[in-house]
Amino acid sequence: MELAQASLNAWTVKDLPLAALVDEARVRGFGGIAPWLETIAPVGAETAGRMIAESGLAVSSVCRGGFFPAATADGRRRAVDETRRAIDVAAAVGAPTLVVLPGGLPSPVRSAGDFVELGEARRQVADGLAACLDHAREAGVRLGLEPLHPMMAADRSVLCSLGEANDLIEELDDDALGLIVDVYHCWHDHALEREFARAGKRVLGVHLSDWVLPITGQLSSRGMIGDGCIDLVGTIDLARRHGYAGLFEIEVLSDRWWAEDPRDVVDVVVERWSTLAPVAP
Amino acid sequence: MELAQASLNAWTVKDLPLAALVDEARVRGFGGIAPWLETIAPVGAETAGRMIAESGLAVSSVCRGGFFPAATADGRRRAVDETRRAIDVAAAVGAPTLVVLPGGLPSPVRSAGDFVELGEARRQVADGLAACLDHAREAGVRLGLEPLHPMMAADRSVLCSLGEANDLIEELDDDALGLIVDVYHCWHDHALEREFARAGKRVLGVHLSDWVLPITGQLSSRGMIGDGCIDLVGTIDLARRHGYAGLFEIEVLSDRWWAEDPRDVVDVVVERWSTLAPVAP
Repeated sequence: MELAQASLNAWTVKDLPLAALVDEARVRGFGGIAPWLETIAPVGAETAGRMIAESGLAVSSVCRGGFFPAATADGRRRAVDETRRAIDVAAAVGAPTLVVLPGGLPSPVRSAGDFVELGEARRQVADGLAACLDHAREAGVRLGLEPLHPMMAADRSVLCSLGEANDLIEELDDDALGLIVDVYHCWHDHALEREFARAGKRVLGVHLSDWVLPITGQLSSRGMIGDGCIDLVGTIDLARRHGYAGLFEIEVLSDRWWAEDPRDVVDVVVERWSTLAPVAP
Repeated sequence: MELAQASLNAWTVKDLPLAALVDEARVRGFGGIAPWLETIAPVGAETAGRMIAESGLAVSSVCRGGFFPAATADGRRRAVDETRRAIDVAAAVGAPTLVVLPGGLPSPVRSAGDFVELGEARRQVADGLAACLDHAREAGVRLGLEPLHPMMAADRSVLCSLGEANDLIEELDDDALGLIVDVYHCWHDHALEREFARAGKRVLGVHLSDWVLPITGQLSSRGMIGDGCIDLVGTIDLARRHGYAGLFEIEVLSDRWWAEDPRDVVDVVVERWSTLAPVAP
């Protein structure tokens, strides 16, 4: 596959500051980058936007807003405020999409036995999203709702399937809202193709890594593309067949790869990407 | 709740040999036990059956058969043979149900990049189950198909939702086949109630533990009932409302609890169970 179809997610090489991330991505020939708020903050959104624009790279997305459920109304308002600020950052760096993570069960309640129901937390996600949509539309940024793996249901994502995310996206029915499909979170889902088709043009991003064992932590156990058992070629093919025209973000959150020199990690990404032959080019 | 409605799963206290497991469960007032093949093997199935019968305890299930997908026809045949032998053991100890775990992606292929598709492995699970049903019926044992958590999709369970298990159970449509609902594996599923209702009388067992963090291994990170964020009372209520009349197995696979004296662990289980007030008694 052409590297121009791939976007280098900042957290795959999280020790690289923005200038180095931009350089690496440009020199290697990636189509774009996906900076996190933490990548942008040290230089500020305006400078970041200028640096990226000058490089000619696209921004596939900015990560992240969301984490809407909270034990108090004040906490929920804070999550909405932070997401609106993240929308502004995304707009300033020219990102069409802000990745929005649902959030988990409200924190003080999570392991106390006396809990907020999943259903209630899910309603808080819906309310939080609804409260950000006008702001997103005005900023020209779309919110990409990313359901995470069920092993993150308690602490990061009370929405943990594409089906559930699609239900909510259809319920809110707003052009400023779409779906992020990260294969790490949903490769196991027997409804993967059906939900991809259902989302159709609302798929705002596709993230790739691989599933490897053991799980050494829910957040940072991902595998380098090609090291695990996810059918990445099939997923890319599926995305293209269902009309996804955007970049494929390489997002490998991994203690194992974070221990390497980030430039060596980019070498591996580039080499692995070259071996992913599309089924239907 | 009455302890007579609970069954003590052997792997919650896996250092206890069968005689001690039976004693603990009888003296405390559990309604039954759920021995594993490994609990039964040291004394043999006939002796185990006699010991349990004399104790007056029920056997809620025997764990386990299955693990059907394999890279070779020989490997798949071996899984069927082992499951048939496990059916015989279940029959000998008076268990109405053998727990059947689907199995993961065929092992040499799991992390090689050149993989067996999930769909193909799922067909192998269907074939394996179909090849065991006659034997189960003749032995008077039902197979309880237990879908595991999606974090086990690669190595233990290519079926990872109640919906998918119900699809397969309906497809095979055999009285000797039903569903095991283990809340650890499916508490996050927004379709939990719908799939419970769909399975109806085909629910052959309900297993309880709790969801706690961090995940320190996919197999042995479970929480003691009451320590985590699963709505156990709600689940028990759901089961009873949908006609489940069996015992609730307490199955806490946990490095943290395995490090304690098993009799102390039983103390905690008994105390926690007493605090679970049913919603609809």
